Amino acid sequence: MSEASFIIETYGRLLDEDRLEDWLDLFAEGCRYEIVSRENRAQNLPLSLMLCDNKDMLRDRIHSLRHANVFNIHRDCHVIGLVRAEPGREGRISATAAYSLFQSNQDGETRLFSVGRYQFDFLPSDTGLLIESAIVIVDTGTIPTLLATPI
Amino acid sequence: MSEASFIIETYGRLLDEDRLEDWLDLFAEGCRYEIVSRENRAQNLPLSLMLCDNKDMLRDRIHSLRHANVFNIHRDCHVIGLVRAEPGREGRISATAAYSLFQSNQDGETRLFSVGRYQFDFLPSDTGLLIESAIVIVDTGTIPTLLATPI
Amino acid sequence: MSEASFIIETYGRLLDEDRLEDWLDLFAEGCRYEIVSRENRAQNLPLSLMLCDNKDMLRDRIHSLRHANVFNIHRDCHVIGLVRAEPGREGRISATAAYSLFQSNQDGETRLFSVGRYQFDFLPSDTGLLIESAIVIVDTGTIPTLLATPI
Repeated sequence: MSEASFIIETYGRLLDEDRLEDWLDLFAEGCRYEIVSRENRAQNLPLSLMLCDNKDMLRDRIHSLRHANVFNIHRDCHVIGLVRAEPGREGRISATAAYSLFQSNQDGETRLFSVGRYQFDFLPSDTGLLIESAIVIVDTGTIPTLLATPI
Repeated sequence: MSEASFIIETYGRLLDEDRLEDWLDLFAEGCRYEIVSRENRAQNLPLSLMLCDNKDMLRDRIHSLRHANVFNIHRDCHVIGLVRAEPGREGRISATAAYSLFQSNQDGETRLFSVGRYQFDFLPSDTGLLIESAIVIVDTGTIPTLLATPI
Repeated sequence: MSEASFIIETYGRLLDEDRLEDWLDLFAEGCRYEIVSRENRAQNLPLSLMLCDNKDMLRDRIHSLRHANVFNIHRDCHVIGLVRAEPGREGRISATAAYSLFQSNQDGETRLFSVGRYQFDFLPSDTGLLIESAIVIVDTGTIPTLLATPI
């Protein structure tokens, strides 16, 4: 398993386990986290479903989720497909994988919440690769409730 | 592909192919097989959806499925995500992976049956790793028909 | 990641990106592409949902999709599970993996379209492995709209 696959596995698992603060540790300081529809991405339209263009924004987001936001209580299950990783410029690694995200509510009912594709860029650091850019390209545009937690 | 990933792939494929006796061969004699809801697991509640705490119980279970149980005829399809494997004590390996399990009925209709996470411990043996403990932590609590075959 | 896994990842991703001509390049000239129900496969019944027994038939199929066929516009998302690859005769590789295929329509609504199993045989060539035979064994028999694009 490549280091990129390893981090993508960790990314999904930490979200599933609601370990959002640990999930945050996967990112570099100057990171970008964006959820965008495939349609907008293909046409280079600027509108995102969620956009954090540095780690402090992502910290704020997690802080709000923990302390301020009201949203449906649910459990996530990320089933992530085969990962393709490729070397990029200056020791960076790019990787992509299709994902399916299922949400279960407090009654134990599961629904398909979102499918799409991760497009990650990783930056080498002293402690290994960090996520420099995480673009989540969603096929599912009609996200049926408030998009609260990261995908 | 690590040996743990290899066995997890085999685990899902043998269930999909209804080769339950071969699936049984993946387990060590003193094995534990348990299906538990994520909620009960998180709170350390003892109630399981299915529990076999040695291989003979699992053999009985398969025998009943073949000869006694009446249940809806279906085909399983396990789509298993990225595997994380880690060394444990005394040559053991622990591994985890999210899974999605789809069931199709005799009319060819498919539904999402269960999502959750495998938590496996493997024991080294002369013939390779064997499953010492398979905990299936299900997010989907409302299993809509009798939970007959293993997940 | 084995070369077989690498090609299976590419196979799914190119379909998702609607790069059907590049997808075609994965196949050998004397290839077979077949979509068959699990039931018919198990009983060796000859009826397929789609059958192309050489690359020109597959080229025709793609050409029709681009220029002639009328079908529901959709985006595919293939989430492919763990791959098992095994050496075959004369340098060939056989590989299998379970897949889930989700389709999203122009309103951004996603549905589970098909689940099943890929059974691929790869042929070595000067440029690496090519697909000699791709059998898609579908569990989902009731494909709810015209099966237009490859699975």
